[in-house]
Amino acid sequence: MKFSEIVQKLKTDQNSLINFSDRNPEITGVAAIDEAIAGQLSYVEGTKFARYLETTQASALILPLAAELQSQANARAIAWLSVPEPRLFFARAIALFYQPFRPAPGIHPSAVIAPSAQLGDNVSIGANVVIQADVQLGSGVCIHPNVVIYPAACIGDRSILHANCVIHERTQIGADCVIHSGAAIGSEGFGFVPTATGWEKMEQSGRTVLEDGVEIGCNSTVDRPAVGETRIKRQTKLDNLVHIAHGCQIGEAVVMAAQVGLAGGVSVGDRVILGGQVGVSNQVEIGTGVIVGAQSGIHTNIRPHTTVSGSPALPHQIYLRAAAVYRRLPEMYQTFRQLQSKN
Amino acid sequence: MKFSEIVQKLKTDQNSLINFSDRNPEITGVAAIDEAIAGQLSYVEGTKFARYLETTQASALILPLAAELQSQANARAIAWLSVPEPRLFFARAIALFYQPFRPAPGIHPSAVIAPSAQLGDNVSIGANVVIQADVQLGSGVCIHPNVVIYPAACIGDRSILHANCVIHERTQIGADCVIHSGAAIGSEGFGFVPTATGWEKMEQSGRTVLEDGVEIGCNSTVDRPAVGETRIKRQTKLDNLVHIAHGCQIGEAVVMAAQVGLAGGVSVGDRVILGGQVGVSNQVEIGTGVIVGAQSGIHTNIRPHTTVSGSPALPHQIYLRAAAVYRRLPEMYQTFRQLQSKN
Amino acid sequence: MKFSEIVQKLKTDQNSLINFSDRNPEITGVAAIDEAIAGQLSYVEGTKFARYLETTQASALILPLAAELQSQANARAIAWLSVPEPRLFFARAIALFYQPFRPAPGIHPSAVIAPSAQLGDNVSIGANVVIQADVQLGSGVCIHPNVVIYPAACIGDRSILHANCVIHERTQIGADCVIHSGAAIGSEGFGFVPTATGWEKMEQSGRTVLEDGVEIGCNSTVDRPAVGETRIKRQTKLDNLVHIAHGCQIGEAVVMAAQVGLAGGVSVGDRVILGGQVGVSNQVEIGTGVIVGAQSGIHTNIRPHTTVSGSPALPHQIYLRAAAVYRRLPEMYQTFRQLQSKN
Repeated sequence: MKFSEIVQKLKTDQNSLINFSDRNPEITGVAAIDEAIAGQLSYVEGTKFARYLETTQASALILPLAAELQSQANARAIAWLSVPEPRLFFARAIALFYQPFRPAPGIHPSAVIAPSAQLGDNVSIGANVVIQADVQLGSGVCIHPNVVIYPAACIGDRSILHANCVIHERTQIGADCVIHSGAAIGSEGFGFVPTATGWEKMEQSGRTVLEDGVEIGCNSTVDRPAVGETRIKRQTKLDNLVHIAHGCQIGEAVVMAAQVGLAGGVSVGDRVILGGQVGVSNQVEIGTGVIVGAQSGIHTNIRPHTTVSGSPALPHQIYLRAAAVYRRLPEMYQTFRQLQSKN
Repeated sequence: MKFSEIVQKLKTDQNSLINFSDRNPEITGVAAIDEAIAGQLSYVEGTKFARYLETTQASALILPLAAELQSQANARAIAWLSVPEPRLFFARAIALFYQPFRPAPGIHPSAVIAPSAQLGDNVSIGANVVIQADVQLGSGVCIHPNVVIYPAACIGDRSILHANCVIHERTQIGADCVIHSGAAIGSEGFGFVPTATGWEKMEQSGRTVLEDGVEIGCNSTVDRPAVGETRIKRQTKLDNLVHIAHGCQIGEAVVMAAQVGLAGGVSVGDRVILGGQVGVSNQVEIGTGVIVGAQSGIHTNIRPHTTVSGSPALPHQIYLRAAAVYRRLPEMYQTFRQLQSKN
Repeated sequence: MKFSEIVQKLKTDQNSLINFSDRNPEITGVAAIDEAIAGQLSYVEGTKFARYLETTQASALILPLAAELQSQANARAIAWLSVPEPRLFFARAIALFYQPFRPAPGIHPSAVIAPSAQLGDNVSIGANVVIQADVQLGSGVCIHPNVVIYPAACIGDRSILHANCVIHERTQIGADCVIHSGAAIGSEGFGFVPTATGWEKMEQSGRTVLEDGVEIGCNSTVDRPAVGETRIKRQTKLDNLVHIAHGCQIGEAVVMAAQVGLAGGVSVGDRVILGGQVGVSNQVEIGTGVIVGAQSGIHTNIRPHTTVSGSPALPHQIYLRAAAVYRRLPEMYQTFRQLQSKN
């Protein structure tokens, strides 16, 4: 594909800021700037990667809006496209060259489908898939091999279920969701009540609801509650090995990095970002737009639009300063003892 | 169901403390107090939820033994039942309205069962289940679709294996256990010995034993050891994504929240509670009745009946005070520098 | 097997340092030193286990090179073998008594194999395995039941895939690898670009490569990147529930304990050891031979051959001292306030 054709395809009405060079090489693929070879398109985001402009073998680059980088690219005879959001444009450029694997519509003969299940148009159901009673699948749903769907679950249009994931009874999954391999959705919440002889199970009669456009990473788990719903709102994305306990209410367009764990009844506002391995205690409320640093431990409610870090979590700026002092504690302690003995 | 009928069903000989109102509405279901609608039964536990008494639409409530709450309920024309353990009674009330999904006994024709496997009475074996040589299943065992059981494993009466879990060779699972979706039980311990050229595998010839009434959460893993046993004693409950390494010995009625990880050879006493994301180092011994706060890191033995928190873990009261000072470290450091320069 | 026969089998040309006792009991199995019964072989490593020499019922022991332990064993009439690396020799002794379960070569009739897949000699393909288009399997590959392999993946000679793991499209797995139950290899990296309306998916067109001798634990996940490769080099071993994000480059003979999480683009040098639950931020570089303590958080590059601990990680010696002072913070703070008021 000619570079000029790529530029045309990436331009949209919103892209009035796009600028691009005259060079028009043939582009055969996309690559990272430090791995690209001749014929490939790459991108530069932030100053960290700008240094590769001197050495990259890429034939074309997506640059931020920086005249200096454009000059550097010109000097090295590299075609360029300059945009406000290079990463977004690179994502779209990948899609010009890469067609993700999607099985064709059809039902594999080894799939086991209950007679009462309702299937939409053009569904793709892979080998050894098990679909139990009263399940509903929307149109264009794609279910990869060995997925199990328990009774009365509902999967919205065009959603994709990757291999070996499990959708439990009564779970509602919206349209355009992706459930990655091995994830368990709508499984029983961890509900036990202490008794004299051990732990008595509290049956989990509720359900899990994922709204449209939600993605759940590989081997992540989203439990259902004793009563009511666990709900993840539209456009929220969870990475791998994340745990969402029973009764959590997750807002829209939230992002959780890998291995985050939420205890029961946690409420997370819209557009919250949780870093990797963050843990959140029972019933905590995290406000809209909050950002939580990796490995933080959240035990109290967090006000909207704040950034917190640490375990227990502190305002991020205080955390940074406290962490910087932490390494000086041995020295402080020594002097403290000297001061103490003098006074 | 009439409220009076629910009261009768929940009363047992042990429940001499039960008290209840005269009102007798028709109850159609159960719900959380802040989500209940007319006709539903809910419960109040602790002061946090008592404020909902003013607004709930529930027709009946399970209350703690508090005359003030009873008066409040009366004032709002809500039927009530007052008991020492509202959460336990609510759990039993759920079971009056909710029948968990249990497949009927029978063997799906797509299941692959070795001729040498021994099956008890009334087992339920779902689609695409694979049961290998010399496996023994007790009576009433329920195996959901796509489960794989390696050779010579033994599953006790009435135990439930959810979809896509894997039971490895020689694993012993007791009666009334639940293995949730995607869990791997009895898998090879992580045993490697360093050599000049890399890592040499230590074969894991031991086995994993789960005693009666154990529950293992979704996608959790319980490894078997090189020699001897990994053992989880009766009534112990593990949440999702928990890791139990080879050779651990876990006591009775232990509870581990999600994402806990135990290294090899850890010993955990009876009735221990580990908060979410806790990590425990090799060979550590945790005494009976210990409570460990979420995200703690345990590197040394913990005495029975203590509560610890933090990484590395401290007695909980010290941890709370130290954590409170932590946020003042920047201020302390500044003053410390001033004091230091004066002295 | 006679003890003398075991000694002969364990001796190799490199073992010039081996020394052993005259006793020659019949050995029927292997066990841990505190659990061994008469007829069993065990081993002693380090002083922690030496105390069991006084009480063990083992008939033979593998000892370190310590004359005192040899005398103790003689005094208790226990046969012994004295070597520089007792654990390595015990590992090899286990292999004399234990034959791990390996299904015989052959293809189960329920396996679903695309016509375009290429299978090497003597492969073993279990029940309900799904092998999609253009997959290549080397000779002696063993695939346990219910595994799913997406199109164009390649599995090297003698590699073992345990039950219910998923190998995604284009993944390259070398020879002699082991993928444990439920692991997901080559799944889509977590790549989203923020937009005004939510998160736009960046297609993950790259692939995951595991070199020879790599092991991936149960329910671990290794994602593929948007462009280029996620690569794990030869002999690297990952424990259960580990997360490797898109684009990571992991060196040779690295060991990661359970529940480690690496964010995108992390680089890990050869022979690095990461303790359990360690987290590493985006793009960080960890040098060759680094050791990272359990639960550490790595946010900056780590120089080769250093040991770090803590979150954020510090040099291990500083961490130990700072952690020791941490518990004294309440006391320090009190005195600090007194000093402050005096000055």
